[in-house]
Order: sequence, then C-alpha cells, then structure tokens
Amino acid sequence: MRRAFDLAVSAAVKGNHPFGAVLVNNDEVILTAENAVNSANDQTRHAELSLVAEVRRTLPPKILAECAIYASTAPCPMCAYAIWEADIKRIVYGVTYETFARLVTRGAPYITIEEVFKLLKTPAEITGGVLEEEGVRAYNHWPKRTSFPS
Amino acid sequence: MRRAFDLAVSAAVKGNHPFGAVLVNNDEVILTAENAVNSANDQTRHAELSLVAEVRRTLPPKILAECAIYASTAPCPMCAYAIWEADIKRIVYGVTYETFARLVTRGAPYITIEEVFKLLKTPAEITGGVLEEEGVRAYNHWPKRTSFPS
Repeated sequence: MRRAFDLAVSAAVKGNHPFGAVLVNNDEVILTAENAVNSANDQTRHAELSLVAEVRRTLPPKILAECAIYASTAPCPMCAYAIWEADIKRIVYGVTYETFARLVTRGAPYITIEEVFKLLKTPAEITGGVLEEEGVRAYNHWPKRTSFPS
Repeated sequence: MRRAFDLAVSAAVKGNHPFGAVLVNNDEVILTAENAVNSANDQTRHAELSLVAEVRRTLPPKILAECAIYASTAPCPMCAYAIWEADIKRIVYGVTYETFARLVTRGAPYITIEEVFKLLKTPAEITGGVLEEEGVRAYNHWPKRTSFPS
C-alpha cells in the first residue's frame, strides 16, 4: 500500500495527479504504475489503467488471477472495468470514494469499483480505506495550477 | 456510423476485435480509432479508449463539448467513463448491448453507457442501435482463434 502512495507522490512531482498503483503476487511487487495524465497529455493515463495495459505483455493469465492490485486512491469506473477485464479479483485501495469526493471533487457523484463488480455479477475481494490517512497525505503534493479531472 | 463499421472491419483484418470509433464535429471526422487489443497485446486498447487518449493532444475542450463519438458497438464501462471524462456529451453507437450479449458474450452481464452517465448524474444525448444490421456484419470478420474479452 505504501509503495502505491510513494508512486502517487512521484506522479505529483512530475506534475501529474497524485495516484499510484502496484500489482502484487505472493508478496512480490510485479508491476507498478503512476498517473501520467498531464505529462503524457492523455487523460486515460490513470495509474491503474496504465498498469493493466502492461499485464498481458508481462504475465500469464493464471498468475493474474492470484494477484492483488493496490491503488493509492479508490479506482474510477474506467480503471475498475479494466481491472475486471484483466480478471484481477483482489483489490485494495487507500483513500476511499467518500474521502476523495469530500477533499477533491467537492461531492461530485461517483461509481465505486464495488458497484462495478456487483453489476457485472463478479465476486471479488475488495478492501478500501487501507492506511487512508497516509494516502491523503499524498494530496499535499497535488501539482499547482491543475484542475481535476482534466 | 459506417466509417466506424469500416474501422471495425479494419481492426479484424489485423487480428483484433472488430470495433471502431469516430469523433465528429460539424459533420467532419476529426479522429478515428480501432481496436488494437491483440496487435498491441494490451487489453485496454479498445477503439473508444484509444480515441479519447488522443483528444487532449488534438482538440481544445470547447470543441470537444460540441463533438459526437460514433462507436461501432455499444461502449463498455471503461470506454464509457473515458468518454464521460472527456466531456463528450453526444454518443451514437451501432450494435446494442442486447445484441452484443446475445451474439458474443452469451448473455454475460453488462453495464451500459446510459447507466454510467445516469449514475454520474450527467445529461447526454445517447443513441444506440443505429444501422445495427450493418454493424453486426462486421462480426463476420471476427478473427479466428481469439476469445472475448481477452
């Protein structure tokens, strides 16, 4: 989880939104990714999506089913569906949807990854709010003069 | 719409899933994209997502709000959220979710773009089933020995 927070800070230092993601198998970090929306000028470059974009090149499907993804903040529905399609069934995230909406989006509506998996009738082990206070601290590095989401 | 179907066939010829997308402004095609999941070995390379990945590099936000996206088949939730985040408010698609589920995913559950926009409380002009029979014909080119979704 802390590795994901470090990646979030790393993203922010590069002028991106402070989000990071890590793929873990048997306590080993297999893949990492960080938000690159501003540096790549590509709004789809969320950390989790960039991570999932790599999985087919890196991992056999059987390994994937055993992996867990750690996201520094609760994943958006775009990333949630990408995680679902990658057949990753263990999801851990730091900052919750509620906290993110309160601190960043000023109460804008959101769709949770729990809801996405439920609508797709797919059981998964999803845990949110892990080390949340530490995760929120990454937002202190939020690059100035950038708005959210774009 | 037909341009999106042509792109779907073009994708299939390259061994990819037969999906295409087109961004239109004032009857002018501004951007096109096709599925590249197999050729890029990247499961996130859906047509619509690849198209949205380009918009910030290509278009000022004001133009985007006037654009319509045409997708050969109803967009998945990953692409739906990317379209939402790009602030594209006019969406047209060919093959419907119902037809796609019947012909391709054998009745697997799905989340519609209408539902995604509704959950995000965002009004949009969404039209599905346009020239659907022509759209379904693109599936005749579905590359052999590939399964769906991966």
